[in-house]
Amino acid sequence: SRQIKLAVIPGDGIGPEVVAEAVKVLSAATVADDVEFALTWFSLGATRFLETGDVLTDADLGAIAAQDAILLGAVGGVPGDPRLANANIERGLLLRLRFSLDHYVNLRPSVLFPGVPSPLAAPGNVDFVVVREGTEGPYVGNGGAIRQGTAHEVANEVSVNTAFGVERVVRFAFEVAQGRPAKHLTLVHKTNVLVFAGGLWQRIVTAVAAEYPDVSVDYLHVDAATIFLVTNPSRFDVIVTDNLFGDILTDLAAAISGGIGLAASGNINPDGRFPSMFEPVHGSAPDIAGKQLADPTAAILSVALMLDHLGLTDAAARVRDAVVADIAARTGNGAFTASRGTSEVGDAIVTRMTDK
Amino acid sequence: SRQIKLAVIPGDGIGPEVVAEAVKVLSAATVADDVEFALTWFSLGATRFLETGDVLTDADLGAIAAQDAILLGAVGGVPGDPRLANANIERGLLLRLRFSLDHYVNLRPSVLFPGVPSPLAAPGNVDFVVVREGTEGPYVGNGGAIRQGTAHEVANEVSVNTAFGVERVVRFAFEVAQGRPAKHLTLVHKTNVLVFAGGLWQRIVTAVAAEYPDVSVDYLHVDAATIFLVTNPSRFDVIVTDNLFGDILTDLAAAISGGIGLAASGNINPDGRFPSMFEPVHGSAPDIAGKQLADPTAAILSVALMLDHLGLTDAAARVRDAVVADIAARTGNGAFTASRGTSEVGDAIVTRMTDK
Ligand SMILES: CC(C)[C@H](C(=O)O)[C@@H](O)C(=O)O
Ligand SMILES: CC(C)[C@H](C(=O)O)[C@@H](O)C(=O)O
Repeated sequence: SRQIKLAVIPGDGIGPEVVAEAVKVLSAATVADDVEFALTWFSLGATRFLETGDVLTDADLGAIAAQDAILLGAVGGVPGDPRLANANIERGLLLRLRFSLDHYVNLRPSVLFPGVPSPLAAPGNVDFVVVREGTEGPYVGNGGAIRQGTAHEVANEVSVNTAFGVERVVRFAFEVAQGRPAKHLTLVHKTNVLVFAGGLWQRIVTAVAAEYPDVSVDYLHVDAATIFLVTNPSRFDVIVTDNLFGDILTDLAAAISGGIGLAASGNINPDGRFPSMFEPVHGSAPDIAGKQLADPTAAILSVALMLDHLGLTDAAARVRDAVVADIAARTGNGAFTASRGTSEVGDAIVTRMTDK
Repeated sequence: SRQIKLAVIPGDGIGPEVVAEAVKVLSAATVADDVEFALTWFSLGATRFLETGDVLTDADLGAIAAQDAILLGAVGGVPGDPRLANANIERGLLLRLRFSLDHYVNLRPSVLFPGVPSPLAAPGNVDFVVVREGTEGPYVGNGGAIRQGTAHEVANEVSVNTAFGVERVVRFAFEVAQGRPAKHLTLVHKTNVLVFAGGLWQRIVTAVAAEYPDVSVDYLHVDAATIFLVTNPSRFDVIVTDNLFGDILTDLAAAISGGIGLAASGNINPDGRFPSMFEPVHGSAPDIAGKQLADPTAAILSVALMLDHLGLTDAAARVRDAVVADIAARTGNGAFTASRGTSEVGDAIVTRMTDK
């Protein structure tokens, strides 16, 4: 049977709770497949940092890089914890993984499942996917400051964009668009202000578009894109955008499609040179940690993305169908309620898969 | 009587139509005051560029800088017009004015007026103001590219942030917050990723906060801020943020509070060394230009912001009251409809002011 080495990084806060359910669902979804997941658990995040002072050791990074895939819960300590003041867990752990493992595609689908309430009065058919660049742009960490802490401080941040980096993610986005019924791709940037970075994105999209004549293409400034996300989200099919704009748009997209309790993501290295990493869009939410209050659905849908990525599309569909059925069965205003704890939701989804 | 020299820049597309109504309202609002507006009209924008090849001459800039205030409609030609391909009207005109005239505060109130439909199902009480920095950040135009047009292109954009620039806008925001009932200020940035720029903003807000003990302060990452803008906008009172985040958040804020047809803005030089500039947030919308289809309300509310800035607060209140009454009287779903043309709306607002 096919062996898949899976790194599991539960992380901080609600991370371990939601990952426990995700792993449960993963086993149930693949029990009938000729596949075996070998899990290696990595204790990483604020908790680990507070115990050992490590954010991400080279040894851990090497061990993770040798796996076939990564499942991550959430990382980050209690906001304002003075002991974490000088540890940037986000940059040192999450972004270091994305950059070291060349996760140049950050894939974030937004679907408003039947029965899920949206903050929008008339959301319409919300079903689009954001292809966010993951290894360039303002996220490169290419910043600095002089005269720090004085009245004459200057602090710069450099957004670095390369033809190589933009073209590969744009090609991926065109492939995604071509595989969808609407076959529509929207480039989002701010070309009228960020003329160099924006010009590069615009030219590459135009050039690659010629190879995909069946994909229709349009362009929106990032500010206008936020307007359409709340006034007419069904206009979107596939969005391709840079790292920072993608960060902003995908949180907004999650909000209009039922909240970050449902939003899944994949940090993908399409070359397969490095393991891809799947994680809910939500954070570690330390305030509700350990109380069985977190919705594990986003982590479970991230498992579905992982199964798709691994070619186990039947198992992915089983997970997704069970989640959709579980959501549809939620009562009241459709929101996850304290009447079901985190593991009850996981159990309910497992039951739907195994009762068939 | 006090003479106020006003530069009027109608601009392109619907700009001239909405400015005509704004000027009408300005006259009516100040007729009883001992004040006289001397208008100088500047033909600037895509139309002017296509006629003369000028985006903004030094002579025009000098003449504008000598005025007391500026009223601008909207600038920008038809998207994709090949004759404009090498003219960046946004950078060369709008941003050049903001930067040359040191408009370091971009003030953008968001109020959901009674009777205005929001795309949100339960918007609650939307009444906040975004204080967007206007002369720094990723907007400085400090970008460049090497090997442009080749597979080895690298295109960079530098966000420049100074203690001087951040402190002055942060102080302005604290003053705004202190003058409001809720006295609450939210810093929005992305400190966990843009650690240098974010660190500067965070430290300055913390330092200035000590001088405003009655103002409560919190912080949100920009991605989280977009979530709250659609799930709980009433949590916001005053937002202070950088140029690019402010651009994005204010379009989203306009969308949730009735659309960009109602969103006003002021580009302010609080020192008074240069004239401040007032403009609707919307663009030139060439597709509906010249058809009397544009809602002039955003331009008219920008006049109210200008009157406030000039110390003519009674006149500002008259404009705002008339606008609120006009909006409340709109029938149907509350939206501006083709049943009233652009100038009919202006006339209706004038009538409300003069019939008292
Ligand atoms: C935690 C943070 C660094 C991260 C990001 O900005 O990418 C998060 O917001 C996300 O979207 O995954
Ligand atoms: C037209 C453009 C340069 C401008 C900006 O980005 O500031 C606009 O979007 C705005 O918000 O006033």
